[in-house]
Amino acid sequence: MSLLVVGTVAFDSIETPYGKVDQVVGGAATYISLAASYFTNQIKLVSVIGDDFPQETLNDLTRRGVDLKGLQVREGEKSFFWAGKYHNDLNTRDTLVTDLNVLADFDPVLPDSYRNPDYVMLGNLTPAVQARVLDQLNSKPNLVAMDTMNFWMDHALDELLDVIKRVDLLTINDEEARQLTGEYSLVKAAKHILAMGPNILVIKKGEHGALLFLKDRDDQELHIFYAPAMPLMDVFDPTGAGDTFAGGMIGYLAQSDDLSFDNLKRALVYGSAMASFCVEKFSIERLTELDVPRILDRIEGFRRLVHFEKENK
Amino acid sequence: MSLLVVGTVAFDSIETPYGKVDQVVGGAATYISLAASYFTNQIKLVSVIGDDFPQETLNDLTRRGVDLKGLQVREGEKSFFWAGKYHNDLNTRDTLVTDLNVLADFDPVLPDSYRNPDYVMLGNLTPAVQARVLDQLNSKPNLVAMDTMNFWMDHALDELLDVIKRVDLLTINDEEARQLTGEYSLVKAAKHILAMGPNILVIKKGEHGALLFLKDRDDQELHIFYAPAMPLMDVFDPTGAGDTFAGGMIGYLAQSDDLSFDNLKRALVYGSAMASFCVEKFSIERLTELDVPRILDRIEGFRRLVHFEKENK
Repeated sequence: MSLLVVGTVAFDSIETPYGKVDQVVGGAATYISLAASYFTNQIKLVSVIGDDFPQETLNDLTRRGVDLKGLQVREGEKSFFWAGKYHNDLNTRDTLVTDLNVLADFDPVLPDSYRNPDYVMLGNLTPAVQARVLDQLNSKPNLVAMDTMNFWMDHALDELLDVIKRVDLLTINDEEARQLTGEYSLVKAAKHILAMGPNILVIKKGEHGALLFLKDRDDQELHIFYAPAMPLMDVFDPTGAGDTFAGGMIGYLAQSDDLSFDNLKRALVYGSAMASFCVEKFSIERLTELDVPRILDRIEGFRRLVHFEKENK
Repeated sequence: MSLLVVGTVAFDSIETPYGKVDQVVGGAATYISLAASYFTNQIKLVSVIGDDFPQETLNDLTRRGVDLKGLQVREGEKSFFWAGKYHNDLNTRDTLVTDLNVLADFDPVLPDSYRNPDYVMLGNLTPAVQARVLDQLNSKPNLVAMDTMNFWMDHALDELLDVIKRVDLLTINDEEARQLTGEYSLVKAAKHILAMGPNILVIKKGEHGALLFLKDRDDQELHIFYAPAMPLMDVFDPTGAGDTFAGGMIGYLAQSDDLSFDNLKRALVYGSAMASFCVEKFSIERLTELDVPRILDRIEGFRRLVHFEKENK
């Protein structure tokens, strides 16, 4: 199944307790597309870059089945740039620089071949841009997923709520779910958000895993599933982990084209597995060197991590 | 199998966003014994109270199979008292009052009938008191578990390390594991702690669940299991949740008398289930009104929460 991915393609400078890298490839759409490319090779990317972006990375994406017809390249301009420094716990970070550059007036234009996708992943971006992408679709996708962040809750809440109304699946972190709803209990926050439009909610908790909430469209029953994060010896660089999680999840869904609760669970575990690889190296490095057997091996690791028999046999 | 429980039997005054209660029954040994009493009725309690403790609670404990021969009652003195106020997130709290009272010079004396227990749970207490209990045992138990907290790392580290050396299983929260080892990664912290004496470590992460680490005595291999916390609509009062977790876990182990990794996993889930009940009401209330079918039902809830099939069938 085809997958439309919208989001940033960018440069990051990152400092973690393990080291420092300057001007490396980053961006939500980059991480999402790379993670999803292990499951589907019909990915259509929508984004904008300057003329400073490495051709090698673009070639890598093309090789991995990512269509770049929807990637605008602005001559004489610079790509979006973010610099951040992680604290020792790797769960919190300071943003040092945010240079919007080409992103400042980004107006996504979907090529004709992009307008009937089966699956859509709206990476974190201005809600108005996310909405403009949905406006250009000619047919209803099987699933529209979106990611967002607290910044838009603070600065563009009305536009954000308008987009949330139009999607099937929202991914958001725990603090953002609390901010969006005013509820501390994540179960209460989930009920609140599932009344805003989406019938599927994924609450990301970083090193503490992720929760999946599905509201059955028929009987309105709430189903809950929990996928842990893999306990790792070292988390090298958490940048892009949330986007990689979303990419693994939506890529698996696009591959399997099955939106049952059982398959959504698997998709969550695939997302967690991809995120667990992402953090093992800086930037996108780890995501360009995986293969299916290694991914399946980690899926088995997740199964073993949580599996128990109720009774002593 | 018999279970020796050492810890506080006390009064708490608690304020949470859901309400306030004054001078209610609390204490690590109370929560541990009540939780364990759903699995074994051969519990031997070691603690100290003043003459102000409600006879009704003592009768309840006796009725539930808890032997109180090792509970010292000091005439004219007051029981240990703790007052705390939880923040809105219920994950952090301020201690308002700590009145040691009878606990200040507590010297545990084990009756003869207590000196050959099959299982031992050393609740959080001065490490020197935990050690004095172990000193009085006449035979090696099948398993000695202990709980502790950061206070002893700050004020009695040498004594603490001496007791840790003597136990098989340590329970500790994530921040304490990091403090004790200087490692941020919980996997690294676990390896460090499993070189201090215990071969089983349980890292409690509150609303984020608990991790079990088992170091195989033969091949030194590290086995990891993760049990989530049950996502709840309301966490009414987290007081005693950690002790209840430990009580459910050790109670299940004492009942099943099986220290295989598979059974330790189940024990962790039983502990999580008991803790998920504990927080639903103030003080020990919820722990006095459960029954086995309700507990088994929640165990099934935990299984469903994390269970997934690796492949679409």
